[in-house]
Amino acid sequence: MSTTRPQKTALLVAQRIVADINRRGNTVGDRLPPERVMLEEYEVGRGTLRESLRFLELQGVIALKPGPGGGPIVRRPDPTALATSLTLLLQFDQAPLRSVAEARAGLEPALARLAAEQMTEDQLGELRAVAESSEHLDDPRGFLEQDRHFHDLVARGSGNPVLAHLSAALLLLDRPAGGTETAARRSTARQAHLRIVEAIASRDAGETQTAMADHLAQDLRHAEEAQLAAPVVWESP
Amino acid sequence: MSTTRPQKTALLVAQRIVADINRRGNTVGDRLPPERVMLEEYEVGRGTLRESLRFLELQGVIALKPGPGGGPIVRRPDPTALATSLTLLLQFDQAPLRSVAEARAGLEPALARLAAEQMTEDQLGELRAVAESSEHLDDPRGFLEQDRHFHDLVARGSGNPVLAHLSAALLLLDRPAGGTETAARRSTARQAHLRIVEAIASRDAGETQTAMADHLAQDLRHAEEAQLAAPVVWESP
Repeated sequence: MSTTRPQKTALLVAQRIVADINRRGNTVGDRLPPERVMLEEYEVGRGTLRESLRFLELQGVIALKPGPGGGPIVRRPDPTALATSLTLLLQFDQAPLRSVAEARAGLEPALARLAAEQMTEDQLGELRAVAESSEHLDDPRGFLEQDRHFHDLVARGSGNPVLAHLSAALLLLDRPAGGTETAARRSTARQAHLRIVEAIASRDAGETQTAMADHLAQDLRHAEEAQLAAPVVWESP
Repeated sequence: MSTTRPQKTALLVAQRIVADINRRGNTVGDRLPPERVMLEEYEVGRGTLRESLRFLELQGVIALKPGPGGGPIVRRPDPTALATSLTLLLQFDQAPLRSVAEARAGLEPALARLAAEQMTEDQLGELRAVAESSEHLDDPRGFLEQDRHFHDLVARGSGNPVLAHLSAALLLLDRPAGGTETAARRSTARQAHLRIVEAIASRDAGETQTAMADHLAQDLRHAEEAQLAAPVVWESP
């Protein structure tokens, strides 16, 4: 096994690659310079450069295309890496899934309040369409995806990218709780979503916050104790 | 450059290594099996195994000791990897530091409220000692560290490990804002910390939440516009 020294070098090179992506104004889909150019530019060995690129690939910042004509392509990172890091921290704490559900209940009402103030009319239209859809009322898995989409749109509507990313990571960690198992609960959740949409449409920050808090508290009450007590574990992304 | 296939294998092997750490009840400082044993156990090539171990090292889950008698040692991850992932997401959003300060202002009052209900007397004693210390009133850097320690203790006192980790990551991202530049502001921040300690000691959740909200709002008002407008960038950990 190698020392910790190349590791730090690999991180520093990764930082320089990201800084150069920004400096050049690269956008999604842009091809980065080929390996031989990077080796000269960053003055490191091939092993270290590949480690840097692997790290950025795991962070979702680049994709590595194989074969001739391949090489690193710029991607836009998604919250998967954030969720993985959080999961590993929680797994070492032996934290239960309840702590994720409670964190959402602590975070999302504040996000919803911001969304009532910040969400654009376009975003509100998209949110309303998701909330009004009755497409998945007979489909627990589909409804769960719809529910996540709803909560993600509220988080983005907050106008704060930090809170939106943290919320998106929590949505990836949270397992189906109490809201989607039965048709009656899916109907209740849909009603709760519609109440939140109306509160945002009225730009009523207090009512929006309360409506989201009520919705998540109800989900927590409906969730099964055994499910909430299960530990957070790192599973396939 | 290799394909995306080995990458997925490396992540799956990393998950199995973490699952085995948990299954065996390994704790910090424990040595993991040597490479030749892991190669057989996980039935992968040396390159893939090393990639898995590198990934876990970057996540802070293991340390790789070099040389003979070396090998992977179990560590407890800290919020650095979480902060790095969040930074990369924000850098691609070209998000300003203001968004980090505003996220703290959104998150920490809710954490403080929980802390008023959940913090143990031992934790409160430690928090009080940090808040009362006047050791760094003439020392901006030292006071900043003291300030971070204070906020981290409140976050841990919330009893929710998810929110505590998220808050710790935000503290790593947030650059010194308005609270530490001048002696007068350090004194004001110290008074704000003492008010929060008293509110927690009285187990007054509402007053604790308000005291934290006031403290962070004041920091935001004191921060310089140029500092808040600067983009979040990934710098040396």
